[in-house]
Amino acid sequence: MNRRLEAIDHIGVAVPNLEEAKKIFCGALGIPCVEEKTVPERGVKIAFLSTGNTTIELLEGIGENSPVSKFVSQRGPGVHHLCFEVADIASTLRELGESGVQLVDTVARTGAEGKPVAFLHPKSTAGVLVELIEK
Amino acid sequence: MNRRLEAIDHIGVAVPNLEEAKKIFCGALGIPCVEEKTVPERGVKIAFLSTGNTTIELLEGIGENSPVSKFVSQRGPGVHHLCFEVADIASTLRELGESGVQLVDTVARTGAEGKPVAFLHPKSTAGVLVELIEK
Repeated sequence: MNRRLEAIDHIGVAVPNLEEAKKIFCGALGIPCVEEKTVPERGVKIAFLSTGNTTIELLEGIGENSPVSKFVSQRGPGVHHLCFEVADIASTLRELGESGVQLVDTVARTGAEGKPVAFLHPKSTAGVLVELIEK
Repeated sequence: MNRRLEAIDHIGVAVPNLEEAKKIFCGALGIPCVEEKTVPERGVKIAFLSTGNTTIELLEGIGENSPVSKFVSQRGPGVHHLCFEVADIASTLRELGESGVQLVDTVARTGAEGKPVAFLHPKSTAGVLVELIEK
């Protein structure tokens, strides 16, 4: 078996209010915030926190129809997704599809960092929303 | 602000059936399983998966009263907790408590790896169950 998914690029955490979440994670817990960004086309404001070996993305939805806002209102705040690095996202998606993994994106799209990304369906991955990023 | 929480030691994922979850994560997704362990006093069977920069712990509860079994029956499978390394768990717990973070364990106990661990209450940490491990 080849290793398909490699290092964890980031852990997405859905929160109702970015400033309040930063007080907890960056203030009390002392995890440095290294960047902030608003991505209107994804309907999110993001704070990037550096844990030492990976990144935590705190995600606040913009508006009620944002997927992150819907997640928070339906399930409460918490871990939203895990993003794994892959070497070749097109071949990984093809192989995963062939092995029966349900894909949200059959073709990669451009993510917030400008790199190709795609999501797998959590029904196929034990309830974990998995994102892939080509790096 | 000092960095209190350091690298992510592992990501705990609660699953209803460890063998089925291994087929997905180790088989289809190709993340190597490096160890398996049963910890009766915590009510869990664990598979340790090496992602390249951190570890995923797949957790199956033993019996209906296991906290992991209750999590799965109440919320469905998915990410259960994030565990962060800290240099000095006793002083970290004291400082977090003083800064208003609600603690599940005010004093560290011995975890599955034989090292001191403690949990913070997810009400204080945006719905994320945070574990600390002294390394």
